[in-house]
Amino acid sequence: MSVFDVIAFDADDTLWHNESIYMGVQEKFARLLGLYEQSSVITSRLYQTETQNIKSFGYGIKSFTLSMIETAVELSEGRISAKEIQAIINLGKGMLNVDVELLDHAAETVALLASRYRLMVITKGDLQDQQRKISRSGLGQYFGMVEVVNDKTNDIYKQLLKKLEIKPAGFLMVGNSLRSDILPILELGGQAVYIPYEITWQHESAEIPPEGTRGFYQLDNLSMLPNLIAQLEEN
Amino acid sequence: MSVFDVIAFDADDTLWHNESIYMGVQEKFARLLGLYEQSSVITSRLYQTETQNIKSFGYGIKSFTLSMIETAVELSEGRISAKEIQAIINLGKGMLNVDVELLDHAAETVALLASRYRLMVITKGDLQDQQRKISRSGLGQYFGMVEVVNDKTNDIYKQLLKKLEIKPAGFLMVGNSLRSDILPILELGGQAVYIPYEITWQHESAEIPPEGTRGFYQLDNLSMLPNLIAQLEEN
Repeated sequence: MSVFDVIAFDADDTLWHNESIYMGVQEKFARLLGLYEQSSVITSRLYQTETQNIKSFGYGIKSFTLSMIETAVELSEGRISAKEIQAIINLGKGMLNVDVELLDHAAETVALLASRYRLMVITKGDLQDQQRKISRSGLGQYFGMVEVVNDKTNDIYKQLLKKLEIKPAGFLMVGNSLRSDILPILELGGQAVYIPYEITWQHESAEIPPEGTRGFYQLDNLSMLPNLIAQLEEN
Repeated sequence: MSVFDVIAFDADDTLWHNESIYMGVQEKFARLLGLYEQSSVITSRLYQTETQNIKSFGYGIKSFTLSMIETAVELSEGRISAKEIQAIINLGKGMLNVDVELLDHAAETVALLASRYRLMVITKGDLQDQQRKISRSGLGQYFGMVEVVNDKTNDIYKQLLKKLEIKPAGFLMVGNSLRSDILPILELGGQAVYIPYEITWQHESAEIPPEGTRGFYQLDNLSMLPNLIAQLEEN
């Protein structure tokens, strides 16, 4: 009998590139507002606005787009033009149409694990956008379930596992965010594999669990995941 | 044994008022753009923009807000000011904070049915906003499951029922949209109760099934639902 009933993957920056797309758009946004403010101020104000808006708008590209517009109005002191506002909306629309670029080793690792385990995706963000990406990624066939959640808190994971009748002890989560993918799972008594992405959105940063924390593993990339899981099965 | 394994409710305009909130905001939006165009043109252009944007933005308030901004830029031929754009964003934020106003009979009907059946909510829109409304409605305790979906097509219902291991023959859906709540369920072999709301968003309009269509029922309001279900159990 297998140790793990379900292996769940975060999506953005775990299976495919995402933060790099936000960074690219943020640079374009800073250039667009270059007349009004310097780049570092624009970026930090945008982050403030995003953080304030999460409570009402939630995560995802639409929320980010609305926050860019608000930041532009504010930083330009009302001087931003309608044409520039439309350019910002177009930046958002561009993000929603960008190709899905898989991370190295994602395709073969997921295919290999799917032959032995029940796999699922648990991700935050806009429902429609996340489903689009899963479908375009070519990996959709490997995931028996896709859950787009509001936020990745202890409580939300707890409800989700209950709904799906999954016991935390048989649950392994793989993701790039300590705050969203790792810490809540460890608290619930599950196991979690942290695979950092090249950039971490400030909002997702958290302290790494101390060495030897039960159920916590860190890998450099997805190619090492099947071996780790095989080892955990043996112990 | 009961005929129905699960009774599912649509949320907006089935359990609480929603379209009336959109209509109210749309009127404010038309007043805001009153300098640039007449009200009927503004409303019809907004609807066009919303429809075009559904494919990338999906349903919900954030999508609606972005569509209002685009419509404003377009109809004002770029003359809309940053201040007015911020006013539009504030209209959207206001919608996300508005109190949930239950429809007549919603509270007692749901409470009564929950004592006998497994109830769930299936709704479109923004994940975060729908969950906020369910929580604020006071009805959350009665629903064992809440599913926020991308769209309400035949395929999406099919996948959902499969995931939850619900057989269409034991499934009853209650909703105000023929297009989204009724027709796909009838096609799948489930039963559906249509309870029209006072206003129907143009996008959701569809032809009513012919009299005598199997599994189709229409009621004036939620107070009549428990009786109908009792009758169906007897037949």
